[in-house]
Amino acid sequence: MKTVNSIEEIQDMARGAVFLGTGGGGDPYIGELFVTRQLIEGKRPVIIDAGELVDDAFVLSVAGIGAPTVLIEHLVSATTLKRIVAAAEKHYGRRIDALISAEIGGANSMFPLALGAIADLPVIDADGMGRAFPHIEMTTFSVYGCKATPALLLDDSGNVVLIETVDDRTAEDVARAVCASLGSMIYGALYPMSGRQAKDFAVHGTLTQTLQIGRCIREARESSDDAVRALVSHLHRPDQGRHARLLFEGKIQDVRHETRDGWHWGTVRIDAAAAQGGAAAGDEFVVEIQNEFLVARRNGRSVAIVPDLISIVDRESAEPLTAEMLAYGQRVAVIGYGAAEIMRRPECLAVFGPALFGINEAFVRLEDFPAQGG
Amino acid sequence: MKTVNSIEEIQDMARGAVFLGTGGGGDPYIGELFVTRQLIEGKRPVIIDAGELVDDAFVLSVAGIGAPTVLIEHLVSATTLKRIVAAAEKHYGRRIDALISAEIGGANSMFPLALGAIADLPVIDADGMGRAFPHIEMTTFSVYGCKATPALLLDDSGNVVLIETVDDRTAEDVARAVCASLGSMIYGALYPMSGRQAKDFAVHGTLTQTLQIGRCIREARESSDDAVRALVSHLHRPDQGRHARLLFEGKIQDVRHETRDGWHWGTVRIDAAAAQGGAAAGDEFVVEIQNEFLVARRNGRSVAIVPDLISIVDRESAEPLTAEMLAYGQRVAVIGYGAAEIMRRPECLAVFGPALFGINEAFVRLEDFPAQGG
Repeated sequence: MKTVNSIEEIQDMARGAVFLGTGGGGDPYIGELFVTRQLIEGKRPVIIDAGELVDDAFVLSVAGIGAPTVLIEHLVSATTLKRIVAAAEKHYGRRIDALISAEIGGANSMFPLALGAIADLPVIDADGMGRAFPHIEMTTFSVYGCKATPALLLDDSGNVVLIETVDDRTAEDVARAVCASLGSMIYGALYPMSGRQAKDFAVHGTLTQTLQIGRCIREARESSDDAVRALVSHLHRPDQGRHARLLFEGKIQDVRHETRDGWHWGTVRIDAAAAQGGAAAGDEFVVEIQNEFLVARRNGRSVAIVPDLISIVDRESAEPLTAEMLAYGQRVAVIGYGAAEIMRRPECLAVFGPALFGINEAFVRLEDFPAQGG
Repeated sequence: MKTVNSIEEIQDMARGAVFLGTGGGGDPYIGELFVTRQLIEGKRPVIIDAGELVDDAFVLSVAGIGAPTVLIEHLVSATTLKRIVAAAEKHYGRRIDALISAEIGGANSMFPLALGAIADLPVIDADGMGRAFPHIEMTTFSVYGCKATPALLLDDSGNVVLIETVDDRTAEDVARAVCASLGSMIYGALYPMSGRQAKDFAVHGTLTQTLQIGRCIREARESSDDAVRALVSHLHRPDQGRHARLLFEGKIQDVRHETRDGWHWGTVRIDAAAAQGGAAAGDEFVVEIQNEFLVARRNGRSVAIVPDLISIVDRESAEPLTAEMLAYGQRVAVIGYGAAEIMRRPECLAVFGPALFGINEAFVRLEDFPAQGG
């Protein structure tokens, strides 16, 4: 068990969460403000390891659901957060023992911390993907038989919807429809699970990871190191089964954005600005977006693909950028980061591998793509 | 209390329900088949007056929700009907004492009878509008403070959604969205109310009315009377505060249909085929459709308007026609039928008067429009 004690830690976690959001998951800035206010008021978010829970503990996932572009404009109210806990305990008929993120990347990293601080509930150092994904069913929880429903959906106005679906893909369809009908931003309590399930099925250590990534970037800047290279070195831990690569550096030449069907679609093209990062002048680098960065291609050949993480950061500061932040002329670096081992299993690829995003390519591990110069 | 004992009665009720559906509400034919099977199996739907209930009885409304065009294609399964009752009693935490239609017009007249026969529950001889309307909140129940939610939505596949909204208009938006996400046909248990509320807020006698209207049409045909005129005579009871008029007779010249946003939109143009019904040759009669027939205009001047009922029937057989059944060349009669008095109160017009359908005209009672020849 540890507590979050400083505003700097919150800021580091928010920064790290944007990195793990791989372009999607929404901007955690509002959540960061909210948790910061809790700290100022003397509250301390508590983070625990799943192993600290008894097996029959009641664990619940909480999340904001909506298009990231709407998410950014939305303030979470303390009243709404308290209503989520009250409504959840009423509908599930149990006291909540701990919260867990369904998705650590982006805004939903901060959401359980905010709710935990308000409601005096610990947050488990884990989530269901170690990144961000656009669909509710795209979690290790769901893959291993822990259902997303019964799930509660609430909005700021006091509307409550309880869904219980035959499968989690249907839960996604219904939640998305409810979201649109209630103004495109709702909060969900979902994936009710036991302590045992949290221990067995989660991607562990991911809240700590947000803190470490954010801190690494901040410290590299403060010491005037090359922040991008410092970050890649921090992430690249083959001894722990995690691989990272600097995939490309260059200047954004073209960004196409579209919000359609509640999703953010797009393509970003980056040209080599110089021979940095192994990029020869004339090289073209393209990242495809469906809420998150899904596949990165260099001169038409894939170099990283979902569920492995692709993150775009500012070339100088290594500040992680969401897809909405990308604009013509920005100098950026693209970092590939291998997903946690559990995420790369065949049963997981069947739920959130490339084919599920309409990409007609087999999954290849980041470390198995031919190395590029750099 | 009375029981429905013959297939002829069921057929009469289904026919009468199409008339009260004023073009919308879906075709009750599937429901008719279903209830007929119950009769053959020895079950007898039981109809009671609201006055037979104790004040604290638990009354629930059940309905099919979906675009009528989809409704027609859909079979109600006995398994699903039983699941509705089980899920409702679980979520409301009470045994159901009686069912009530939210909407008597169209398919939803048969639905409570089918469910009542399967689950041994009486059906109240009343509903929330005495006709059909396209929105959940357009009921006398809602106008007088009996909320549509908590409401349960279910589909044939086993998905269940419980909604509790701040107002019934929002319930409509959410239910419509859930409906679309689950394949455009769901079943709802809504408007949980007490026996007292059913007595005070319902439009009474409307199940009996479907039976009487259907029987009147059948008997007029059998005796070779002018079925249209017999029906208008039957409906026109100024001593009981109910008015009916034969508005027009002619041949359909043009029907425009469109299914958009889950609604059936359209316009039907009828030309005077002869000087029957007071229609001079050259007269043009137009009925505007938004699921139901909303306003009827003769040579551009309104002659009947929502919430009063406008029904189109076959000129010879007086068979009531839904909007989907209308086609070029049909010889039809248009009948205006004043809504129940409760439906014409100012607080009701504020929820389902002309303005709520985008019609920029004040409500005028059918009997207050200048009489036409006929």
